[in-house]
Parts: sequence; structure tokens; C-alpha cells
Amino acid sequence: PLAWGRAARQPLGPLEPPGLPLAPCRAFSNNKILVELDESSGVATMKFKSPPVNSLSLDFLTEFCISLEKLENDRACRGVIFTSVIPKIFSSGLDITEMCGKSTEHYGEFWRAVQEMWLRLYGSNMVTVAAVNGSSPAGGCLIALSCDYRIMVENPKFSIGLNEAQLGIVAPFWFKDTFVNTVGHRVAERSLQLGSLYPAPEAHRFGLVDELVPEEKLQEKAVAVMAQWLALPDHARQLTKSMMRKAVLDRLVAHREEDIQNFISFISKESIQKSLRMYMEMLKKKK
Amino acid sequence: PLAWGRAARQPLGPLEPPGLPLAPCRAFSNNKILVELDESSGVATMKFKSPPVNSLSLDFLTEFCISLEKLENDRACRGVIFTSVIPKIFSSGLDITEMCGKSTEHYGEFWRAVQEMWLRLYGSNMVTVAAVNGSSPAGGCLIALSCDYRIMVENPKFSIGLNEAQLGIVAPFWFKDTFVNTVGHRVAERSLQLGSLYPAPEAHRFGLVDELVPEEKLQEKAVAVMAQWLALPDHARQLTKSMMRKAVLDRLVAHREEDIQNFISFISKESIQKSLRMYMEMLKKKK
Amino acid sequence: PLAWGRAARQPLGPLEPPGLPLAPCRAFSNNKILVELDESSGVATMKFKSPPVNSLSLDFLTEFCISLEKLENDRACRGVIFTSVIPKIFSSGLDITEMCGKSTEHYGEFWRAVQEMWLRLYGSNMVTVAAVNGSSPAGGCLIALSCDYRIMVENPKFSIGLNEAQLGIVAPFWFKDTFVNTVGHRVAERSLQLGSLYPAPEAHRFGLVDELVPEEKLQEKAVAVMAQWLALPDHARQLTKSMMRKAVLDRLVAHREEDIQNFISFISKESIQKSLRMYMEMLKKKK
Repeated sequence: PLAWGRAARQPLGPLEPPGLPLAPCRAFSNNKILVELDESSGVATMKFKSPPVNSLSLDFLTEFCISLEKLENDRACRGVIFTSVIPKIFSSGLDITEMCGKSTEHYGEFWRAVQEMWLRLYGSNMVTVAAVNGSSPAGGCLIALSCDYRIMVENPKFSIGLNEAQLGIVAPFWFKDTFVNTVGHRVAERSLQLGSLYPAPEAHRFGLVDELVPEEKLQEKAVAVMAQWLALPDHARQLTKSMMRKAVLDRLVAHREEDIQNFISFISKESIQKSLRMYMEMLKKKK
Repeated sequence: PLAWGRAARQPLGPLEPPGLPLAPCRAFSNNKILVELDESSGVATMKFKSPPVNSLSLDFLTEFCISLEKLENDRACRGVIFTSVIPKIFSSGLDITEMCGKSTEHYGEFWRAVQEMWLRLYGSNMVTVAAVNGSSPAGGCLIALSCDYRIMVENPKFSIGLNEAQLGIVAPFWFKDTFVNTVGHRVAERSLQLGSLYPAPEAHRFGLVDELVPEEKLQEKAVAVMAQWLALPDHARQLTKSMMRKAVLDRLVAHREEDIQNFISFISKESIQKSLRMYMEMLKKKK
Repeated sequence: PLAWGRAARQPLGPLEPPGLPLAPCRAFSNNKILVELDESSGVATMKFKSPPVNSLSLDFLTEFCISLEKLENDRACRGVIFTSVIPKIFSSGLDITEMCGKSTEHYGEFWRAVQEMWLRLYGSNMVTVAAVNGSSPAGGCLIALSCDYRIMVENPKFSIGLNEAQLGIVAPFWFKDTFVNTVGHRVAERSLQLGSLYPAPEAHRFGLVDELVPEEKLQEKAVAVMAQWLALPDHARQLTKSMMRKAVLDRLVAHREEDIQNFISFISKESIQKSLRMYMEMLKKKK
């Protein structure tokens, strides 16, 4: 529990499973995520561009992790802003098609990628700012929660929250821990049980997002906030961040395989598969 | 700590001590608590009717646990609303006469019943809503805190809080844990040390109760809130609730006998007995 | 974890290192701290008077611990108010000269004294009220955070916060734990990373201080708050306080030597020494 003089973060090591193809440094992948690095400021922007709704597919997550790792290892980069190029959507969360009608091996691989994304993002040594320019349910909300600071467009049509319960599934304990660390136990307990999605102004009222801005000011505000955080000496800020987040990160690391097995057996249940199929049908009809 | 695919709650087993007389199913006891089950909605109401002040005597607690267990095991019941038929009082908390001038065996039996009440209520798989229609100090406040949602009549003459310190006694750690989970560490620390009772509007301001309503709207609001919570799939909601409350429940389960022994030796002290006698004298004079 | 019937606090034993010269009882030291005890009310006041800025030097800390221990053991004393006689400054925090250009032995001795101060203050059986009548960064803020109640002069020119990160150093885990217990995880995470100092009105808004008053009302208000806390039975209040703070106190006790070693190796780094020298240069130029 001691932070003094420790490395801020135990490096996660190369992406798992080993052998995953790493693109050469700085040749940023840009299939589902566009990465721009401004070397003068040391600030990168990761723009989600995976139509129609930036859902977190296995491909998206893999690209996310590779991009983040490259930035993490790039001395020219000290902070990352996350935003979307898809109108009205930041990210719709975990891709349900990855959890439906697939093999247990696939479920395991997918869940490991979700874990990896969170471990790298919540534990990042860089300053991370979410510029939430659209709705952000479930896994999309998790990405925002895992950043150091959350700015959201003030449009009440954009909502954010961990709404897993509405789909008949359960947010895993590390989603919950991240949520509790942000909004406290009571709000988390109530919101998770109800699967609540909050319009931006309400989310701001209880601290799920830190700040609201008009859409046209979002980029500018994200850059200003980033500059404020980067004004601090990296080493002290990183050690402090690690001190705040280590307990929760360590908990998943210690239970990672168990968490994967639990996910597989839960998601493989016919009752859950049926719920997810019904939910996907509903989404299709909405279009 | 993993919620995926687990049973939401380890069943507590039959009421302890074993051999406690269980009324036959659905023959609801109604000596101190009136239980009504609306089978169409799946919502039961437990109405406290133990004059003069719904104090939590051993008999009341036993009846509470039996009633709750029957509802828990009744597939027709998915949620419970708790309220009082005594004007101006929800519940006055633990019955001081049970803690004064009795044998150590009696203190032990009483404390086990208090624990049992909390374990069953805080860990209930059903949706639990407190419709607080009067003052609710100490153990009365604990009942409200242990529900999923708290609605209180907006009358500032009705107060609520864990005021044990005012009587010279100490709220046990699991009262404290429940309180911290609801209002956070700082408010709990200050309130428990001062034994603060808060008028309904103030209690609402810092989240000790979730909502205030005029007295004539209380029942209607409780039913509406219940419907909102019951709209979620039971299984996902129950797993989520368990994930949020398990750590605190497990802590009492692990230290249950020790907690009973601590209570017995504390309450048996002559200085504490004297405090309680003085407090009872004061209450008598108030009348 | 059980509070019933336990001693409120394991006594820390005589001040360490053993052999430290204890002034005879009631002959209050008054070199850097003026101690006044009003025997009629049972309330002492500790007035910091160490120009220019009440920095927490080894001498100040030693005197602080001795004075507090004497009051703790004085049956005539039930509460302590902490305030400053230096205009505009409550305390500027740890004395940087103690951390700069000294031997590792000195660093170790200094850090042990900082720990001792916090262990005695956060774990005090007495009621402790901070009457913050000036700015209170870093260690000064820790003193306020460790009290039971914080009243601050409403002057927005007075600021308070744990701003260690701004100096390139890291608040240790027990500063962090104390902060989280007061303002919650999210505010602590953000404030510690940014090294934020908050003007009094802002600090009040999120609960870093409990109450704001005009400067001329500060003493009167502190006395009134103290009277309110002393109205409770000591024993129940002490057991309750211990229950709330024990986990965090125990954590430092369990890791005390490790924490000292971590401090020594961190502060001995040339990069940290350079940061501190630059900071001191900047302070000198400000004058």
C-alpha cells in the first residue's frame, strides 16, 4: 500500500495472448480507431470510428489495447483524449454479437480482451481524458469512468451509465469498483440495480461526469483540461494515480482467470443467450 | 468477489436457533406486524403495528424474520414495502427493556435476533422499500438503511438517524457499515459520534433518505418506486445487489459469535445499565 | 472490527524514540505551540506560534506530540481546539528544510515524527476541532483532516489542500486514506493528482471543511462546536470514533518501518532533492 519511491505501475508486459501482432511503433493502426499524436504538446487523441455505434468488438478492443500500449511506450506522449467521430454516440459498449451464439473459447478470448482494455486504461501512466460527445452506455461508460477526467456534451439526449441489468446481465465486480470509486457506494448500488442511464445533466449532478460543455467547445475544453493535468510533474502524478487505483486493479489481476470462467459460464446459459437475442431483435426493430 | 453466474445470496438456512416455530406458509403472523401480499403485483407490505412505538422487541424481531423468510420463499412475492400503522412513528429502534436487567442468556438471544433481522433484510433477494411515515431512530433507522430505497414523509417533525451514542451505547460495526454504504464515511463518522437525529428534509439533503413526499402520497409513491425496481429482470438485479452488499454481510457472518459476546459484556456493565435505566426514566417522564 | 466493549484506542505507549524528554505534567511547553487548558470546560487550545509560517519542523512535531500526549493523559481535558497565532497561516505543512540536504538518519527521524503526529491526532480519544484561520497546505491540511471537525475562516484568500504533487512529491498512503475518509474517493483522486489547493469557500462546498465563519467569529464557533461534541458521553463517542478510524490507523501501524524506508529512499533521490531546492528558491524569491 506504500507509494513512496515505487514504480507507479507494474508494467503489464506485452499484450496477451503472446504473439499478438504488434504494429511497428508509430505506424498507428487506424481501422476502428484513429490515433493522432501532437508531438509539440505530448497529447494524443484516440478517435473511435467504428460504425454504426462504436461497439466494443474483439477487433475494436484489440486495436484499442495496441494503440494505447504504443502511446504508453512513446516518450513523446504524456496524455490521451478519447472521443468519437460517430455522431451522437461515444461508444455503445460491449458488442453483443461477440457474446451470442459463439464458442466458449470465443467468449473467453473476448472477455480477456475486455479485461485487458480496462487494466491498461484504468492503470495508464498517461493523463487520460474522456471527451464524451454522444451516448455512452455500459462498456462505453466504463471507458469514460476509467479516465482521469470526464467532459460530456451538455445535450440531455446523450445518456451515460452502466445499464447492464436492463439486458439481464450483471456488470462484473471491476466495473462496479470503478463506478464506486467515481460516484460512491450508494449511487453505484442504486444505479447498477436499476441499470440506470442518465442524461448528461443528471450524470453531471452526481459526479458521473466532471464537466458539461456545448458540443462545439468539447475539443477545446479537453485540450485545456489536459494542459492543466500535464502541468504537474509526471512522476509524482503517476505515483499518486497508482496509489489511488492499485487496490482495484490488483483485485482483477488476482482473480482474472476466475472472472473469465465466471463470464463464460454465465453467458453460456440458455436463459442469458435468449435475453441477448431478444435485445438484439429489439435493437434491429428500432432501426 | 465475483458476481458472474453465482447464486445471488447464500441462503441463510432455517431461522436460528433451530426449532423456532415456523407458521405454515401463507398463514401470516399478524401479532406485531401485519403482512399483506398483493399477488397480482407480487408486492407485499409489512405494516408495523406494535404500540406504543414499534420498538424492536425480541418478539417483534422474531415475527419480522419469520414473515420476511416466508415472503422470501414465496414465488408470488418479488418485493416488500415496510411501513407503520402507528401514527408519527416508523420504529423507535431496539427495545431497551430487552437490554436492561436481564440475564446474559437473554442478551445473547436478543442480539442474535437483531443480527438475524439485519442479515435477512440487507441480504434479501426481494426489492425492499422503506415507506418511512414517522420518526425512525437507531434500529428503526437501520431497517430503513437496509432497504433498497427509502421514501420518507416530508414532515420535519419526523426524524431519522443512528443516535445510539446519545444513550451512551455504540452502534455495532455492521450498523456502521450499512450507514457508510449509504451516506459515505464522513457523514457517518460525524453522525455516529454525535448520535445525530435528522429531520426528514435534512436527512434527504445528504442521502440518508432518497425521496420526500407528503404523507398522503407515501403509499402511492412506494408502489410506483417498487414497480420501477420490479421492471428489471430479477436474476440480474439480485446478483447486482449481492455484489454490492456481500462484503459487509460476510463481515458479520464471520464475526457473529464474537459480536454477540461483545454485546453481552458491554451491555452487562453496570455503567451501561445505569445509563439505560436513566434513559428509560426520562422517556417515562416525557409521557 | 468489533467495537462493543473494547478499549477505544490501543495506547501508543510513551513517545518514541524512548528517552525523549517529557516535560513535567502541566508545565506546558510553549516554544512553538502555546497550550491553554480551560479546566472548567475541559477544553484545551493548542495555538501554533512558529514564525514565519508554522511549518512542521522536527522540533514543532516533537512539541506537538508531547503537548497532545499530556492533554490525552490529563483527566481535566476532554477536547482540543487547534489554531494559529500567525496571521493568514494555519500551518504551511512539512518543513522542507528537514527533507533537503540532510542525512538518511535525519530523514528517518523526521518521518517517524510526522507519523507519530498523525497517529496521535487521528487516533485521539479527545474531541479535536480545527479552527483554521489561514492557509493550510499539505501537512497543515493533514492536521485539519485528522480532527473531528473543521471550521475555516471564510476568506477566499485562505486555501487548503494536499498539494504535494505540485512539489513533485507524493502524499503517503495514510494522508490519502485520511483524505478519502473525509471527501470520498473521487475528489481525493483528482485533488491529489492535481495537487489542488482550494479557497475556503470551495473547500467547504465539497466537505473538505465542515463550516465557514467570519474571522472574528472563529473562536466562538469553535467553542460552541466543542460544547456540542462534549455533550455526548465520552465512552460511547470514543468507541465510535475508534470504530470509524481504526482500519486506517492500523494500516500505518502495520507498515510503519516500511513507510519510513520508502520515504528515505524517495526523498534521497537527486531528482527529488533538486525539485525541493528549486521550490525553496522560488519561495525565497516570493519574499
